Amino acid sequence: MKRLRWQVAAAAAVGLALALEVLPWVLRWLRSGRRRLRREVLFFPSQVTCTEALLRARGEAPAGEQAALPDCCLCGLPHGESSLSRLMRALLAARVSLELCLFAFSSPQLGRAVRLLHQRGVRVRVVTDCDYMALNGSQIGLLRKAGIQVRHDQDLGYMHHKFAVVDRRVLITGSLNWTTQAIQNNRENVLIMEDDEYVRLFLEEFERIWEEFDPTKYTFFPQKKKSHSCAPLVSRAGGGSLSWYRTLGTSSRNQT
Amino acid sequence: MKRLRWQVAAAAAVGLALALEVLPWVLRWLRSGRRRLRREVLFFPSQVTCTEALLRARGEAPAGEQAALPDCCLCGLPHGESSLSRLMRALLAARVSLELCLFAFSSPQLGRAVRLLHQRGVRVRVVTDCDYMALNGSQIGLLRKAGIQVRHDQDLGYMHHKFAVVDRRVLITGSLNWTTQAIQNNRENVLIMEDDEYVRLFLEEFERIWEEFDPTKYTFFPQKKKSHSCAPLVSRAGGGSLSWYRTLGTSSRNQT
Repeated sequence: MKRLRWQVAAAAAVGLALALEVLPWVLRWLRSGRRRLRREVLFFPSQVTCTEALLRARGEAPAGEQAALPDCCLCGLPHGESSLSRLMRALLAARVSLELCLFAFSSPQLGRAVRLLHQRGVRVRVVTDCDYMALNGSQIGLLRKAGIQVRHDQDLGYMHHKFAVVDRRVLITGSLNWTTQAIQNNRENVLIMEDDEYVRLFLEEFERIWEEFDPTKYTFFPQKKKSHSCAPLVSRAGGGSLSWYRTLGTSSRNQT
Repeated sequence: MKRLRWQVAAAAAVGLALALEVLPWVLRWLRSGRRRLRREVLFFPSQVTCTEALLRARGEAPAGEQAALPDCCLCGLPHGESSLSRLMRALLAARVSLELCLFAFSSPQLGRAVRLLHQRGVRVRVVTDCDYMALNGSQIGLLRKAGIQVRHDQDLGYMHHKFAVVDRRVLITGSLNWTTQAIQNNRENVLIMEDDEYVRLFLEEFERIWEEFDPTKYTFFPQKKKSHSCAPLVSRAGGGSLSWYRTLGTSSRNQT
């Protein structure tokens, strides 16, 4: 009897050990539908490619899948992927909301993509710089005409951000102004990240600016601005500007 | 005898099970010195604060620790943290190398920080835009004078990046041009990330540009450039520009 008990105990112990080791694998197998978070960097200048297929009506390519770029289009441009097409795909993945915080916006392809999202019922909000929204070729007027909400600054400084947030889930940010000149000629970078913490912080920044640029506070003549970029070497004390910086919760690794 | 064998087997199985479960905890305990990866976003405009203490000689604040900003300084400026001071700290943490890829660089504080790193023996390399490096107030001349290697483009497009890589480990990138005007007046963002994959890709971009801007290929008169930012609505086919985009290996989470 005692021998039987020990046999049972031994078998149970072995079974327990195996179960404890196998359990994580089982859980991982059950969670095998998990999706990888998107992390990507796009470098420019971008090859000039045909992006017409990306601007077709929704339904031809399910969300998250790449629409085939046909060779039957006779435009004469290459039909492969490019940094511009990947940026457009990231935008056109929007299904619920799109926040744009852009210093300058004159790219017709990106403008069409944003208007298409608005037509599809995506809530689009745009913040831009008041000087650059008025330049020849700006897409801002077309966005307003389509009924998209656009707000702008009236500050001395520039609204120099170049970011977008898609569905409150994907952050698109970098050095790129959304202009054809920049896309096709400049050395630029654009990060595309599914990152809850960065998205949250950039959305907070967007909402701060959105509220501050309340149209009920607009005056007719914006204040004259300093020249862009390389200003004379003058340090100005005070100025009452707030600084905003956030340290995110971080992941860990072995110390090397 | 058989009973004893079963007793031993059972004990061994239990011990094995416990050991397998305890082992990961033991390893984690041994690795308890691991450091959290840095992830931060800085928003501008930055409050104007005194940054003199950050520019003292090395030794007063060990690497990774924050040097105290004294109130005994009589400059009249606030001595707290600001987005600029945090950016300077990220730079001044460099101990081995610093790659700068900057469209415009005129901030005297950031210029002093970079020259200080060079004096400390950090290998500093700078890539910049040929038009903006020549503007009044640019720090590029002071960097060259100090013996720092600086290369520039001669392209039609702008070298519009605004990134830095510290010790081949920390990426600093965003919308911010390193000018006093931008730091103190513009709405800008700067990401600071310890991220092996992003660092690797940005370093590859830097090395591509560094090699391409080989000084032995300089001509005396750079080609005239298009105006910055909002260009007329002209799409140019061809151009022979390469597109560079990279999708990073990603982390996982449960699908929601």
